[in-house]
Amino acid sequence: MKKYAVIMAGGVGSRFWPRSREKSPKQLLQIVGDSSMISQTVARLEEVTEKENIFIVTNRLQREEIQKQLPGIPHDNIIEEPFGRNTAPCIGLAALFVEKKDKDGVMIVLPADHLIPDKEVFSETLNLGAEYANEVKGLVTIGIPPTRPETGYGYIQIDERKVKENLFKVYTFAEKPNLTTAERFIESGDFLWNSGMFIWRADTILTEMQKLMPELYFDLMNLKPHLSTEKFSSGLQTMYGKIRSISIDYGIMEKSNKVYLIKGKFSWSDVGSWEEVYHLSDKDENGNAVTGDVYLEGTNNSYIYNPGKFTALLGVQDLLVINTPDALLVCKRSMSQDVKKIVDHLKINKKIEYL
Amino acid sequence: MKKYAVIMAGGVGSRFWPRSREKSPKQLLQIVGDSSMISQTVARLEEVTEKENIFIVTNRLQREEIQKQLPGIPHDNIIEEPFGRNTAPCIGLAALFVEKKDKDGVMIVLPADHLIPDKEVFSETLNLGAEYANEVKGLVTIGIPPTRPETGYGYIQIDERKVKENLFKVYTFAEKPNLTTAERFIESGDFLWNSGMFIWRADTILTEMQKLMPELYFDLMNLKPHLSTEKFSSGLQTMYGKIRSISIDYGIMEKSNKVYLIKGKFSWSDVGSWEEVYHLSDKDENGNAVTGDVYLEGTNNSYIYNPGKFTALLGVQDLLVINTPDALLVCKRSMSQDVKKIVDHLKINKKIEYL
Repeated sequence: MKKYAVIMAGGVGSRFWPRSREKSPKQLLQIVGDSSMISQTVARLEEVTEKENIFIVTNRLQREEIQKQLPGIPHDNIIEEPFGRNTAPCIGLAALFVEKKDKDGVMIVLPADHLIPDKEVFSETLNLGAEYANEVKGLVTIGIPPTRPETGYGYIQIDERKVKENLFKVYTFAEKPNLTTAERFIESGDFLWNSGMFIWRADTILTEMQKLMPELYFDLMNLKPHLSTEKFSSGLQTMYGKIRSISIDYGIMEKSNKVYLIKGKFSWSDVGSWEEVYHLSDKDENGNAVTGDVYLEGTNNSYIYNPGKFTALLGVQDLLVINTPDALLVCKRSMSQDVKKIVDHLKINKKIEYL
Repeated sequence: MKKYAVIMAGGVGSRFWPRSREKSPKQLLQIVGDSSMISQTVARLEEVTEKENIFIVTNRLQREEIQKQLPGIPHDNIIEEPFGRNTAPCIGLAALFVEKKDKDGVMIVLPADHLIPDKEVFSETLNLGAEYANEVKGLVTIGIPPTRPETGYGYIQIDERKVKENLFKVYTFAEKPNLTTAERFIESGDFLWNSGMFIWRADTILTEMQKLMPELYFDLMNLKPHLSTEKFSSGLQTMYGKIRSISIDYGIMEKSNKVYLIKGKFSWSDVGSWEEVYHLSDKDENGNAVTGDVYLEGTNNSYIYNPGKFTALLGVQDLLVINTPDALLVCKRSMSQDVKKIVDHLKINKKIEYL
């Protein structure tokens, strides 16, 4: 059994404006850790599979930068979507590539922009998950044992009776809860964070799509003969022009009866906002996390990013200050989820130079 | 009787960092109003004297930009101090230039960086003050009738019995008071704000210097024969190397018995801090004063300067945000007096590129 990784790298990460832009989205930035999010994601797969078995699904705008950041990935493994249609079409498309290369291939589907410092436990989890996925011919999702009643993540409820060591059947998927519900989830003990990472054989996910998303499956089968031909690009364009935007969770996971869960016992963050980045960063004795040369007075619990320039903060509390060559963000930490509204504003007002 | 203006333009304005730098200090910046502070100062003198009778005292670093901003001022009227030694030497030096040009000349001494929107009343005040200074051979200072118990200004107490219409003898000069004292000053009714603007005959101030600052006078008389010769620059360098740094208020005004006051019944500000600039600026309905393209949400009573770039502020109150190509300031409005501490920090740490 051979393992293939599929890294989904099409997003923009609008909550990371002004650093994230269409051409330099979150996954291509060094936001936490010592290299870009996608570089860390690829480096984490060293004990899982070889670089020639890693596929990246992205778009035209990001391709060049991805090739630059990931020199070991074969160019043919970089799959360009004409535009984003959420995770289900992205995964279906990648399944065609994996199946063509290896009809028994197991694919490990990973977001490009998560933080997982513990490479060893992570690798062990993926390797075990791949064995199980091949064996039970099921859809294996990775659930993270929760450490707090987080309202920013989706949850997965499992049947606690083990199918195998660290393999469980899934009862339900739950959307991002409010705080009371999240606390109840934590107390119950059988809810895990939905990490958005999946492991399955390519033929298993395609068979499930045939059952649960027949229109998408039909389009994928029409496209299949054109893989690696010059008709592929225009065929994909036509297909994406008519398919619905739908997530794999909604389209498959919540409906399939073949869903399993393996617990990922490693620390994990989806790095969903500047507030999360603040929490993940090293801080000084006043709780300030700083990139760049600074003078701070009466300033606490703030995140400052202004590399190569000088920043002075006086009398400032709980603030995010992110400066880029053409745009500056100053945001109360508690409002970091609203950063995406700025991107909406820029789109509506056609200020494309800042997108 | 001919009038000469002497504009003191040697300061740095460290409270306006990061906009004010050694090469572009406060008086050369457009901070409030529609041109630089010094351009406004010169434009305000249109009804007072001709441009060939305006002297600017500055330093080498600022000379080029001053010539650029004030094309009508003869280059010979720009006097370069080797370095700053406060106002007394600066005024003594300028007095030599005025006296050489016109032994009966009246000199009007003005800071380069004040805001006085009412040009008409201002001109009338200077013209009347110049007549009085010539007539009584006294040191005439301009006092501003106070409108609030400001603790950021010095005060002047007068004898309310008029010497002439709008001319008063001065009792005392008072340093910047605390709030209780300032309130007492306002109640008493005979205290005015010290504007730092003076009017006197060149020979009057030199005679008073002979009496009250004999060492400075001695040095000035040694320098006098070298005016307009090639020895002037080195002579001035030698003189400034040994003289004391001392203000005209401390050296002359507080000690002389020839001090008069004329009330300046125009609105006036010394524009002493970013907080003051905030108060002087046009604001939107949420109390925000903005230069540049912005997106504001939950943001009130803040001052934002980031021209040519995009700024987003979320959940921010009472903040000063000033961004320049190489340095950014984010400061609680109530701490705007502490901005000069940043400049001290930069000097101590030899970060000269930000000075």
